[in-house]
Amino acid sequence: MQTSFSDIGQRLAGTSGIQELMDDLGQALNNQPDMRMLGGGQPAAIPAVQALWRERMQSLVNDQTTLDKTLLNYDPPGGNPLFRQNFAAFLKRECQWDVQTENIGILPSSQTAFFLLFNLLAGQTGNTKKRILFPLMPEYIGYASQGLCAGMLSGNPAKIEQRSAHEFKYHVDFDRLRITPDIAALSVSCPTNPTGNVLTQEEFHRLRDLARQHHIPLIIDNAYGHPFPGVIHTSFQPSWEPGMIFSISLSKLGLPGTRTSIVVADPAIIRALSNMNASTALSNGNFGQAIINPLLADDTLLKLSRDIILPFYKQRSDFATQVLHECLQDKIEWSLHSREGAFFLWLWFPKLKITSAELYQRLKARNVLVIPGHYFFYGLDEPWDHSQQCIRLTFSQPEAILREALEIIADELIALH
Amino acid sequence: MQTSFSDIGQRLAGTSGIQELMDDLGQALNNQPDMRMLGGGQPAAIPAVQALWRERMQSLVNDQTTLDKTLLNYDPPGGNPLFRQNFAAFLKRECQWDVQTENIGILPSSQTAFFLLFNLLAGQTGNTKKRILFPLMPEYIGYASQGLCAGMLSGNPAKIEQRSAHEFKYHVDFDRLRITPDIAALSVSCPTNPTGNVLTQEEFHRLRDLARQHHIPLIIDNAYGHPFPGVIHTSFQPSWEPGMIFSISLSKLGLPGTRTSIVVADPAIIRALSNMNASTALSNGNFGQAIINPLLADDTLLKLSRDIILPFYKQRSDFATQVLHECLQDKIEWSLHSREGAFFLWLWFPKLKITSAELYQRLKARNVLVIPGHYFFYGLDEPWDHSQQCIRLTFSQPEAILREALEIIADELIALH
Repeated sequence: MQTSFSDIGQRLAGTSGIQELMDDLGQALNNQPDMRMLGGGQPAAIPAVQALWRERMQSLVNDQTTLDKTLLNYDPPGGNPLFRQNFAAFLKRECQWDVQTENIGILPSSQTAFFLLFNLLAGQTGNTKKRILFPLMPEYIGYASQGLCAGMLSGNPAKIEQRSAHEFKYHVDFDRLRITPDIAALSVSCPTNPTGNVLTQEEFHRLRDLARQHHIPLIIDNAYGHPFPGVIHTSFQPSWEPGMIFSISLSKLGLPGTRTSIVVADPAIIRALSNMNASTALSNGNFGQAIINPLLADDTLLKLSRDIILPFYKQRSDFATQVLHECLQDKIEWSLHSREGAFFLWLWFPKLKITSAELYQRLKARNVLVIPGHYFFYGLDEPWDHSQQCIRLTFSQPEAILREALEIIADELIALH
Repeated sequence: MQTSFSDIGQRLAGTSGIQELMDDLGQALNNQPDMRMLGGGQPAAIPAVQALWRERMQSLVNDQTTLDKTLLNYDPPGGNPLFRQNFAAFLKRECQWDVQTENIGILPSSQTAFFLLFNLLAGQTGNTKKRILFPLMPEYIGYASQGLCAGMLSGNPAKIEQRSAHEFKYHVDFDRLRITPDIAALSVSCPTNPTGNVLTQEEFHRLRDLARQHHIPLIIDNAYGHPFPGVIHTSFQPSWEPGMIFSISLSKLGLPGTRTSIVVADPAIIRALSNMNASTALSNGNFGQAIINPLLADDTLLKLSRDIILPFYKQRSDFATQVLHECLQDKIEWSLHSREGAFFLWLWFPKLKITSAELYQRLKARNVLVIPGHYFFYGLDEPWDHSQQCIRLTFSQPEAILREALEIIADELIALH
């Protein structure tokens, strides 16, 4: 049977860039077991973190009443009431945010939170068509296919600061940022996936003030950042204020299999998201909340982030950077984005003569998988050469694999230049 | 901040009937702890079933490799490859369905499966607007708010067969069923939530033939039925064939907290749903698949359904029916839908002089919560008096509470007539 798909179906189910890429990655994984995987965004297996989750799971299994509820109950679509209350208390105590239970909503993953948020706030709205504006493009690849209406996601190209021969940093280009009446919200991931960029405190405040002035929400995706897993190497600490929407995730704590995110927002937004979650998913999975709930009573999660997770990724990032410098030296023109957070290296080759897609294919042929950078540039008004000159690498892999992969990348790029 | 919501946002997040009702139920639960809850669709706490899930959880915690993967891995958006393979083998062996791994897709709940399916197949499609047709209305309340386009869900009113003084059954009214070119699919829950109706084998075959003739899918929601939890009291056993879309759920096995559904469909549909799941949720929660996977090797799930779950609900249903007959006798005109499956009694009062919403309020004032029937009638071309004359009761509650509640319902209705 040849079934036709709706316009929205084709948007969400079609072969968007990310889906083609995921298929390609999946094929490579299955058919080339010796592939060096520097592609995915999966958190690393950190022994001390895994030990904590195993211990929590054993406690949950020992506590029959809680286990039974975790398996058998449909909680309300906005999350378990007690968990929401405890999470609000946790944020108030540990982050000094002025939040109540009504400011907290649970959703089945950050990915879902953003899908619902973007389509709640933007798209056809009466006679106007509203847009989400990403003020700092490149941005997370997973947002690109989430709009139910064409053209509802717009990006503002970042301004590039060259800090030294082999280091650059993106900044919000406020001179080009135009908040027209059809902009429904500003949205930034911080630390940014893919670049590892972290907003400066000043940028955050300017974005906050702009959003406030235009009566639109400022959305911050804290998946890699505050308050956990806290993989931020600067002093930046965003503080939630009314009118803002923050998304926090359990995934990068090492629990992506639980599909749990926590949204902090005005009560009207939380109610709307809960209602949307009722329509689209009925309720959340209970395991993430059950695992985390007892840890909200103290600062375990913050200590875990600060003492275990942050140093782990810092060490891996330092190692990868050192190998890169050893291999590339000054042989070609290359630049690494300032390593301010998250799990990635974002590499820029300003003199690259092929597209990033071709570079991806060449590296794949040599058993190294990276993510070509062009997928992270979308919703731009005009083409940008820079978008074809970058790749994203994850450094969660063991050091030996990382070294091999980086040597091959360097070798290929030197040959190409 | 007064944030405006998009048209789609208002559709999904607005105060639809079901969301108002859920709020009302939630309030009642919190403020009236002595409320007799005959409202929800939660599975009952069946000791032998709970024992199995506790045992599986302990085994999972003992198996560190699998536990670590369950917590730490992002599986592909269509589900764990091994689970899909094992589930296909299970269906082939136990149900004799001709399915391969590519026919199996995992999604985070049936609710999500239907949200994605309806919007994949129907809504704006080029220049035409396609619709989902429910051939047997009343239907599941949770579908009603899932359409991203206005008017994309249509219902065909059931034909009523009065079988005896106090028993009736719905049939598909094939004389009124008009499959125009804008119909994208036929969709039936079987057993039907709320009515407990089960299609006859003949109805199923006629629907199959009609769908085939019009080159559209026949969608069957098996949440309460085949192959598990198997709460079907007739001999009906649907067999999946190419072109059909079947949805199977872990929820009514007692695992709603895992949010796991299995869709069986043509590979093109499975691929589209997986891609949609990537866009909207990235991947599934892993616990449901991890708990069930080892049980697919034999007929444990079918035996559990047949020997434990089915008799449990049958006994409760018989008890509730007996109490109803004792209380109502022939004092008023009342009729119960033939009890063919699922967890509900569907009661019809043909001479009711108030709306079902008013009846709901009166019963709530007497600490009995039911679901007023009118929510289950939607997408109809013209008003139907019958839609105001029904209520849905769940019989999962302990017998003492069930008896009290039914006595109050009878008392109120006798007073009203």
